[in-house]
Amino acid sequence: MGNHSNLIAYCIDNMQFWNMKTHPNISSQSIREARERIDHLVHRTPVLHSEAINELAGCELFFKCENFQKVGAFKARGAANAVLKLSKEERAKGVATHSSGNHAAALARAAKVARIPAYIVMPANAPDVKKRAVKGYGGIIIECEPNLLAREQGLKNVVDKYGATFIPPYNHLDVIEGQATCALELFDAGYSLDVLIAPVGGGGLLAGTALATGFYSPHTKVIGAEPEGADDARRSFVAGYWIPIEKPNSIADGLLTSLGEINFDIISNKVEDILTVDDSQIIAAMRIIYERMKIVIEPSSAVSLAIVLKNKSLFEGKKVGVILSGGNVDLSKLPF
Amino acid sequence: MGNHSNLIAYCIDNMQFWNMKTHPNISSQSIREARERIDHLVHRTPVLHSEAINELAGCELFFKCENFQKVGAFKARGAANAVLKLSKEERAKGVATHSSGNHAAALARAAKVARIPAYIVMPANAPDVKKRAVKGYGGIIIECEPNLLAREQGLKNVVDKYGATFIPPYNHLDVIEGQATCALELFDAGYSLDVLIAPVGGGGLLAGTALATGFYSPHTKVIGAEPEGADDARRSFVAGYWIPIEKPNSIADGLLTSLGEINFDIISNKVEDILTVDDSQIIAAMRIIYERMKIVIEPSSAVSLAIVLKNKSLFEGKKVGVILSGGNVDLSKLPF
Repeated sequence: MGNHSNLIAYCIDNMQFWNMKTHPNISSQSIREARERIDHLVHRTPVLHSEAINELAGCELFFKCENFQKVGAFKARGAANAVLKLSKEERAKGVATHSSGNHAAALARAAKVARIPAYIVMPANAPDVKKRAVKGYGGIIIECEPNLLAREQGLKNVVDKYGATFIPPYNHLDVIEGQATCALELFDAGYSLDVLIAPVGGGGLLAGTALATGFYSPHTKVIGAEPEGADDARRSFVAGYWIPIEKPNSIADGLLTSLGEINFDIISNKVEDILTVDDSQIIAAMRIIYERMKIVIEPSSAVSLAIVLKNKSLFEGKKVGVILSGGNVDLSKLPF
Repeated sequence: MGNHSNLIAYCIDNMQFWNMKTHPNISSQSIREARERIDHLVHRTPVLHSEAINELAGCELFFKCENFQKVGAFKARGAANAVLKLSKEERAKGVATHSSGNHAAALARAAKVARIPAYIVMPANAPDVKKRAVKGYGGIIIECEPNLLAREQGLKNVVDKYGATFIPPYNHLDVIEGQATCALELFDAGYSLDVLIAPVGGGGLLAGTALATGFYSPHTKVIGAEPEGADDARRSFVAGYWIPIEKPNSIADGLLTSLGEINFDIISNKVEDILTVDDSQIIAAMRIIYERMKIVIEPSSAVSLAIVLKNKSLFEGKKVGVILSGGNVDLSKLPF
């Protein structure tokens, strides 16, 4: 992938593969089955609203609170679904991933409940709090040098040695299917939305949200919310081909990863638009949610409200669903 | 009240008066009627629980979330009840109070919905954010010098001039009856609790909680939670007579007021015990609630959990209800 035309060829090749693969595999029925499958592992999170924020935004907002989800983020859904879809033989050998974020904790927890080992490859310099979260759920941490090559080699070693199944954080159909259960709950609870907004980093949540919305509420438009400093999804969406990000930079630390390939395919087909905001707008929206709704969210969760407040005319008078992706934030480093 | 024996005589005199007054006025039926009366003005707040905190505490905790209440605190209940119990003639002349805290905002809001004026006497140097909260609900601010005498004189002037009815923040039966609706909701939702803990400052919430618990769940013991630096309720409770506080000091800024007289009477008759914690224990409990439950609370709300964590053996294996009193906190001054 040294130059652009190679990259495009690579993407097009893979898109055909994904097109074949995704559409038959995730259906209205399969998302419902996923919801049943993970029922003992995740919360049906509440939907909150605030008259004060509605007044401020000029529309009616419904916040789906994945900050109250197990492990503090929507990631619990996808990881649980992927683990529970493994065969008996696969389960016996365990699961593996390389991540230091919410997915690592989510996978460790899903594996713990399924009583199988979870091997988490993590850079040796990862923050202690993240290592503790994984260990707290019984995950086995494999430390590696802090670079992508070492992480991938570390993962390969674990997979080779134990025969563990690699569960990636977003570029995986079972993970996307799991994340789709979040929007399913919204529609099952009877919310009739004009628009549904989800943040986009790797694209697992946005892809799942777009698929579920297409099945259960086809009149609802899905919009992706992205930080300006990590706008590869926006740029890929506009260009029509996958453009990975090089040096992402945003306070929304959960959204710094490049869009996954499968995710890009689904998103480019099913999402209405991807909009961006800068960090000062994200911080302002985050503060509004803390002050008016009295809930703790991570910066990534605030991107969607920031988009609504930046583009008021676009949402005026509409019923707008917003997925708050998680609440894992370092409280000693709040940006206000 | 220059010396102790005068104070005791004063208290005993007043206690007889209160005994006559309280018991016939607040009943099982009257609290239910209050709940109906204020139904369009307040939320039925949710009850949250956290497996992680249960494990930490060694008991089963149920958090009644008044931080999600209108105006961000339980105070919305008492103010609404007091305003709505006024006669037509009284209403026409408006209501008044001297307060710069949650009660001022709660009274302004209740008056706004009832379409009557609310005169709020506030020291000229009160924080802008508090003035804005009152003005945002249409309250009329009367500024005064920042001392108790000026406040009381300011209040007297308003009452004399407009004939407005003074609604005090806690030392008032209709206010206590309103606060009692919070525990009523807990028991109506089917929670069978061994213990119910509420923080105590002026004592409106604790007195209402104790009355409601006596009516609807007499086997449940009620415990008051107080900061060590403002422990007049604890000292009064132990002594058996009312001891006002002189220089209260605690991060739990909502609990710095002296216990009210009517409140003391009810509390000394109906509450099992009052326990105290220091500020470091309050801050630690506050952080646990932010991190594990992902909700924003004010320091006063954390005092009850701090008490449970300090006295684990007392609560071991029990079902413990905890009233989180509010969520109005200056986010730029969080103690972590």
